[in-house]
Amino acid sequence: MQNIAIMGYGVVGSGVARVLAENSQVIRQRTGQEIRVSRILDVRDFPQDPLADLITHDAASIMNDPAIKIVVETIGGAGIAYDLTRQALLSGKHVVTSNKELVARHGPELMQLAHDKGLRYLYEASVGGGIPIIRPLHDCLAANVISQISGILNGTTNYILTRMDEAGIDFAQALAEAQSKGYAEQNPTADLDGLDASRKLAILTSIALGEYIDSRLIHTEGITRITPVDLLYARQLEMKCKLIGSYRLLPDQQAALLVAPRLLEPKHPLAVADGVNNAIMVEGNMLGQALFFGQGAGMLPTASAVLADVIALSQKNGPALPSQPVWRISPEQIVKEHAECQVKALLRINDQLAPAQIERIFSGSGLRAIRPETGGETAWLVGETGNLTEKQLAAKIKELNSAFITRLRVF
Amino acid sequence: MQNIAIMGYGVVGSGVARVLAENSQVIRQRTGQEIRVSRILDVRDFPQDPLADLITHDAASIMNDPAIKIVVETIGGAGIAYDLTRQALLSGKHVVTSNKELVARHGPELMQLAHDKGLRYLYEASVGGGIPIIRPLHDCLAANVISQISGILNGTTNYILTRMDEAGIDFAQALAEAQSKGYAEQNPTADLDGLDASRKLAILTSIALGEYIDSRLIHTEGITRITPVDLLYARQLEMKCKLIGSYRLLPDQQAALLVAPRLLEPKHPLAVADGVNNAIMVEGNMLGQALFFGQGAGMLPTASAVLADVIALSQKNGPALPSQPVWRISPEQIVKEHAECQVKALLRINDQLAPAQIERIFSGSGLRAIRPETGGETAWLVGETGNLTEKQLAAKIKELNSAFITRLRVF
Repeated sequence: MQNIAIMGYGVVGSGVARVLAENSQVIRQRTGQEIRVSRILDVRDFPQDPLADLITHDAASIMNDPAIKIVVETIGGAGIAYDLTRQALLSGKHVVTSNKELVARHGPELMQLAHDKGLRYLYEASVGGGIPIIRPLHDCLAANVISQISGILNGTTNYILTRMDEAGIDFAQALAEAQSKGYAEQNPTADLDGLDASRKLAILTSIALGEYIDSRLIHTEGITRITPVDLLYARQLEMKCKLIGSYRLLPDQQAALLVAPRLLEPKHPLAVADGVNNAIMVEGNMLGQALFFGQGAGMLPTASAVLADVIALSQKNGPALPSQPVWRISPEQIVKEHAECQVKALLRINDQLAPAQIERIFSGSGLRAIRPETGGETAWLVGETGNLTEKQLAAKIKELNSAFITRLRVF
Repeated sequence: MQNIAIMGYGVVGSGVARVLAENSQVIRQRTGQEIRVSRILDVRDFPQDPLADLITHDAASIMNDPAIKIVVETIGGAGIAYDLTRQALLSGKHVVTSNKELVARHGPELMQLAHDKGLRYLYEASVGGGIPIIRPLHDCLAANVISQISGILNGTTNYILTRMDEAGIDFAQALAEAQSKGYAEQNPTADLDGLDASRKLAILTSIALGEYIDSRLIHTEGITRITPVDLLYARQLEMKCKLIGSYRLLPDQQAALLVAPRLLEPKHPLAVADGVNNAIMVEGNMLGQALFFGQGAGMLPTASAVLADVIALSQKNGPALPSQPVWRISPEQIVKEHAECQVKALLRINDQLAPAQIERIFSGSGLRAIRPETGGETAWLVGETGNLTEKQLAAKIKELNSAFITRLRVF
């Protein structure tokens, strides 16, 4: 019998209890023993819940219980979750989490602490919901130099962009719809501003490089400024607009990282992910490209990923804990300065500027006019020759002055 | 220093040596030690090869070398490879393989032998080439009842069908092209007849159920009878023709298994896999659907999957061997009788039969006429109501008598 505790009985935490109950037979078969929730920590009570009796408001009742070997942390955030994760590890318990914010912020410290105590801090559920990605990247691609990762990493924003495109509604309407369907939280800032995708990209890149990437160093733009007109241009170009997190290993061994809405060829494998789905493309120097696709969030998929880690720690007859490297903290700067990264973009420019002027400003940086469908502006694809940097683009936009409307990067 | 031996220095075996050489730095970083090839067994000599000195024709020089802890088996087939795998395990060495035929045929025995000796028999490279699928299915989806698996599991046949469709060439031409490009072996029977896909489907289903599925029990049809006219109908239906291996868990807990060319909606995620690519869709009762996509074969991708297993066995500071269940051999029949499985199909019927006759024969089993583009025949979709079994279809085809031309199942 494996006793576990759940800290944070929200959507994912209660999902863990539900998956354990519904799939108890197959889980017992695969671990050789029963896995049982013996304590649930939350500030709230859940009198109607079948596990109401297990609720505690006192973390010590978990930390001091020697029968509990594994603690599931589904609180979220980097505050109390950080303190409780540290306490659990210091109390000799493995920790399994779905908390990408905490892994992205304090991963190296918590992994090191786990390592020093002969324990594990596992986080399969932190990226891609139920889609297996952390362990495949870490284990199955271990013989590859991971040269690229790109992904649609956030279901909320993907749902909103899909609906804006399909139904022709604006951002606010699509957000309201996402909230009414439970696909967006009441405070969706971390999703909409790209922070959630940025944390997930940082986690994936840290695994790929074995070195810690601080998500706060990743240039991150959200989707709040995307308008129906942007999507109209996407259609004219026969492309899709997606919030994409991307990592690319540069010849100088630095990592080019970006989270931003981008135009994507519809034939690109990532383009299959519409609605709340996620898709992650990984390129290894031996493997070539591999795509992982599925429902990137949701109670049961994410809970099932949490339990995969719990099961890995509960193999009755296995000699083994899953291996876990501690991310190094590099003394060198491995995140490429954003201003120096190359960019390809669609620029929307006010008609007060003559094409000849635009051609002069962008001469030599690759330029193609796009037939505009809206009055009062022209649009141009720039950077197609691949030698325009973000810094150069910013300077040219400055030169365009007030004639500039907006830019949308192209993937 | 981890010493390994390679048995079988063909495409994949020599790829293993090459990946080890090219990615030695990242592999050392991830394992904490160097992995070195210290012996290569093959009947041939390779005087031009940089590792020519390591070639041996005598298996005993590997089996009796206590410094070799891991043996890579890339011989293929279930003959000599079987004997040598047994010998290696009996000599106390882990075995890592890309040999799907051997895993599908003797998996339970070899896993049991490994288990009894405290060793591992790992086979990530046996399905999907470099695409991570074995371990994700086994580890990451462990909290799920796996209710469905469907996949484009063979790159050779997928390349041929893609080229027949794109270039309008016939099967023989497409095969010749595949052979000239190195995508098909000189003796491609196991690929073309669906046996290779069938073995891979058996392996995936065995992992999903934890019970051994003998691939010889899977109803298997290849692609040799597919004609350009079949693909014309696929186009008219706006579908693609793919060789699909599929597993479905039935309410009676039996497994419906089939390998056959089938018509597929172009919006289905599997349809992204054209050319030599593979795609595998897995459905878990908690996860929903997840897709794995990438290059399903080839020297370097497959070799990198072999090395992922070698690396998992070589963690210098890890306490751990990866966990490995031994597939149970069920006393009950878990493979559903093919004749009892439901079917939906496109029937091509000679024009000597009047539509009224066809409607009479198929009354009640779901029927839709397809506008034919070729003279002398009509085509019908049958089984759309989902209550037609393979046995019933066979009986009705008998009733159609010589008017029947061919049938293509619909996925």
